[in-house]
Amino acid sequence: MKKHQPTILVVNDDGITAPGIKVLIETMQQLGRVVVVAPDSPQSGMGHAITIGKPLRLDTVNLYNGVEMYKCSGTPVDCVKLAVNRVFKGAKPDLCVSGINHGLNHSINVLYSGTMSAAVEGAIEGIPAIGFSLDDYTEEANFAPSAAYIKQIAQQVLKNGLPQGTLLNVNFPKTTDIKGIKICRQARGKWAEEFNERMDPYKRPYYWLTGEFQLNDQGEDTDVWALEHHYVSVVPVQFDMTAHHAISLLNGWKFESKI
Amino acid sequence: MKKHQPTILVVNDDGITAPGIKVLIETMQQLGRVVVVAPDSPQSGMGHAITIGKPLRLDTVNLYNGVEMYKCSGTPVDCVKLAVNRVFKGAKPDLCVSGINHGLNHSINVLYSGTMSAAVEGAIEGIPAIGFSLDDYTEEANFAPSAAYIKQIAQQVLKNGLPQGTLLNVNFPKTTDIKGIKICRQARGKWAEEFNERMDPYKRPYYWLTGEFQLNDQGEDTDVWALEHHYVSVVPVQFDMTAHHAISLLNGWKFESKI
Repeated sequence: MKKHQPTILVVNDDGITAPGIKVLIETMQQLGRVVVVAPDSPQSGMGHAITIGKPLRLDTVNLYNGVEMYKCSGTPVDCVKLAVNRVFKGAKPDLCVSGINHGLNHSINVLYSGTMSAAVEGAIEGIPAIGFSLDDYTEEANFAPSAAYIKQIAQQVLKNGLPQGTLLNVNFPKTTDIKGIKICRQARGKWAEEFNERMDPYKRPYYWLTGEFQLNDQGEDTDVWALEHHYVSVVPVQFDMTAHHAISLLNGWKFESKI
Repeated sequence: MKKHQPTILVVNDDGITAPGIKVLIETMQQLGRVVVVAPDSPQSGMGHAITIGKPLRLDTVNLYNGVEMYKCSGTPVDCVKLAVNRVFKGAKPDLCVSGINHGLNHSINVLYSGTMSAAVEGAIEGIPAIGFSLDDYTEEANFAPSAAYIKQIAQQVLKNGLPQGTLLNVNFPKTTDIKGIKICRQARGKWAEEFNERMDPYKRPYYWLTGEFQLNDQGEDTDVWALEHHYVSVVPVQFDMTAHHAISLLNGWKFESKI
């Protein structure tokens, strides 16, 4: 009997020519049939943005021998939507992987990250989904040490699936001596912005967004802790954003029942 | 003793000239000092996008008598970041309200919505935050019936605060006969995309994102149910996206501890 060959959708937010997606494609080719739909330009920080005010382009491209690839003019989430609707035409892939992102997406960054939002969109579509990111922002970032872990994690997800409404956020530390994999929760923290103010040649100010991550969490069960201790962090993520624990408190508030 | 006058940051995603933000400004003026920082152009569907590849503009504008207003060239989340850092300069406002959005943001739309993402960013900054949206997509949408409810809800939040890490997602039904307020959870559902394919004058295809909302939830405790039954839906939202219930399951997966 012929074994079922899984179909794997590969997306990212750094764009289709990024080195991180190349490593992800090569790793997924060991597990099944790969289809790539990725942005034609960098889309970092696009979060869960979709394109509604202008039309989208979706064109085939031939970068790596024999790999079915499409570049899209939209956001990472647009890529997943176009993949599901126009490339797979409703025949869902068995797995959606996003990345490998050039830079970390731990903690609160799950919200800002195009890489993670593409994976979230895959999960919303009912596809088991994983986002991968590496703690290295340099041009010569080495994505190779992550590959063996990516393969293991993807194999587990292909074998076991994921609980309904969840996906995985996987981050890799910057080290050649990875200690192993840790299942974590999202650390509490936020970016402290410091807008860099400059003057244009017409003496009008403009601002560059910069900032520093502030960790407000001493827990040893967080993704930030795991990464600092050279572990691969795996956070199960859900897209039900309801704060269920706050419902009873709000039910105690007194509103005029009808105005 | 003089009563403390709260400071209220007003943002939106439909842009600073939208009719919905005008109603929100007027309502908030009854409760405190209003400062508006809103996008200079429509930013619907921008989700939690931030601008990192290009600089931002932030300029004062005088639309409504005596109201401190700024227009920003970025996304709704950029507006909140610039407000906190450049307008308030660290002195946090007492409340952040976003909207009133021209169209619903129930259920999964909390992820795609610029209106809600601005409120989420306010909450990340530690500011009690509320997003408001109206089920009316027409040009002549009537935001006025929502105003009395907005005032009540904002007053409660100013009085009681909100549990740490949470904010409110408030949606208004399209009716002149609102039945009251219901505290809800986010309904399960998703958009079923139908990309509209067209040909440009050069015979190359392009795609418009369209779609229909698919409700996969029969619960009577959801925001969709409340709106369909002419209630104002109030969903407490959190930005910890960890699927805590999935952690123990994932801890049962067998990984090679070190590769």
